[in-house]
Amino acid sequence: MSNHFIYLNGEIMPAERAAISPFDVGLLRGYAVFDLLRTINGVPFLLKEHLRRLHSSADMLGLRVPISDTTVTRVIEELLELNAHTEATVRLLLTGGVSSDGMHFDPATPTFMIMTAELHSPPASIYTDGAKLTLVEHTREIPEAKTTNYLTKLLGDAKTAEEGSLELLYHTGGIVTEGASASVFFVRDGCILAPREHVLHGTMGAFVLDLARRDYEIRATEVSVSDALNADEVFLTSTTRDIVPIVRIDKHIIGEGTPGPIVRDLMDRYRIAASGA
Amino acid sequence: MSNHFIYLNGEIMPAERAAISPFDVGLLRGYAVFDLLRTINGVPFLLKEHLRRLHSSADMLGLRVPISDTTVTRVIEELLELNAHTEATVRLLLTGGVSSDGMHFDPATPTFMIMTAELHSPPASIYTDGAKLTLVEHTREIPEAKTTNYLTKLLGDAKTAEEGSLELLYHTGGIVTEGASASVFFVRDGCILAPREHVLHGTMGAFVLDLARRDYEIRATEVSVSDALNADEVFLTSTTRDIVPIVRIDKHIIGEGTPGPIVRDLMDRYRIAASGA
Repeated sequence: MSNHFIYLNGEIMPAERAAISPFDVGLLRGYAVFDLLRTINGVPFLLKEHLRRLHSSADMLGLRVPISDTTVTRVIEELLELNAHTEATVRLLLTGGVSSDGMHFDPATPTFMIMTAELHSPPASIYTDGAKLTLVEHTREIPEAKTTNYLTKLLGDAKTAEEGSLELLYHTGGIVTEGASASVFFVRDGCILAPREHVLHGTMGAFVLDLARRDYEIRATEVSVSDALNADEVFLTSTTRDIVPIVRIDKHIIGEGTPGPIVRDLMDRYRIAASGA
Repeated sequence: MSNHFIYLNGEIMPAERAAISPFDVGLLRGYAVFDLLRTINGVPFLLKEHLRRLHSSADMLGLRVPISDTTVTRVIEELLELNAHTEATVRLLLTGGVSSDGMHFDPATPTFMIMTAELHSPPASIYTDGAKLTLVEHTREIPEAKTTNYLTKLLGDAKTAEEGSLELLYHTGGIVTEGASASVFFVRDGCILAPREHVLHGTMGAFVLDLARRDYEIRATEVSVSDALNADEVFLTSTTRDIVPIVRIDKHIIGEGTPGPIVRDLMDRYRIAASGA
């Protein structure tokens, strides 16, 4: 990592020099939000949308990004040049900052960090054959904010690995919400159903729905577990994985058990749109 | 802070030299547990019980404290001597450690930190006059583990401050569980009711119940919001605040609106037991 640079509180520095205070409430109290974007052909994709979501997450926790979007954009460009990834993910992390008593903090002095990493693509088979989700009851705390709280996801990784599943699918009292790190959509009778409540606004999800809108009806609605299992098609959207067809939820086969026509159409549309990005 | 020392990953060092990696999953993913104890007359109080709870919390996250209890005890003694508090709190923090991809980590290389701070006593009036709680619906994630996730508590602090309330009182679908950072107990017809499910095992709570046991019936049970509001007496227990009589929950006056006879008896018993600790 000796040639790897990150941005921390006003300064671009070698990663091994970057030190987070042990008194940071992001560490002591999990009081932090983040966002994650990717590059396409080396250029940040949907940067404006990710910054908008970061500001929205920050607002919900009473935090504020301490530098302007213009400066964030310039820092990202500099990091991408310094770190020379093929394609990169860019993580923006904002915490309440250092606390003198381990509880209270001054929102005027947050910790703000920008890190880049090589983007690793998932196995191609999830796009051709489709992937599986594992259903669990869980509601993220402040689900509309992208907080750093990934306890349930990290603990669930053992279970998904064991079951050969791509990701957890959360439901709240029988109402399906989202994946552990993705938006999830359901197709029924040619209509795309988007779970409406207790979900994070998906940046990639919104982009994909925009591509779908001119030809498909889209309904932001309540989706029950039974609706989900009986959907004609299911897909997830994610910044790092684009669109992934879902062909199983637990033991239930979705549709024919192969990627359906609408999700394949959307994957084509996305490929074209992203190559022109 | 220049004379303040902390322990981090094998070494006692000046706090300003202590650096947490920006790649620590405690920071990036809120994947961390902690425990907090206090000294009485400079000696760690209920240390064995706090260590037992830390190990239990760690287990639930698949983590392991990397040094023995004997070493932890010795480090705490050294820090207390170096930092020379009047009375101290001691925080033990354990995270999943550094992650190369911001998600996966090796439980064999956790981050383990021990910090001490001056113990600040709450205003004496909460003991003489009693305090107020603010009821909110919330279930902590993995409530039996003491994780670093304090989002709801920190966001709720504005509300409790505004209402002159000491703390949030959580309920899960109408069943009362615990305070945001305390155990809560209810007295009805001379019997002490202890909420049973979705609660952290309270170290101070267990100590106080042991003092009560020989003269009072104690029932680990389900306590509804209505039971709570209609209790004869209510009290909370907390490492840093001992026993606090609760005389209001939201707008509801508990009992006569003053500390009741059983909680006052328990406070007396605690004072005697703790002075002999």
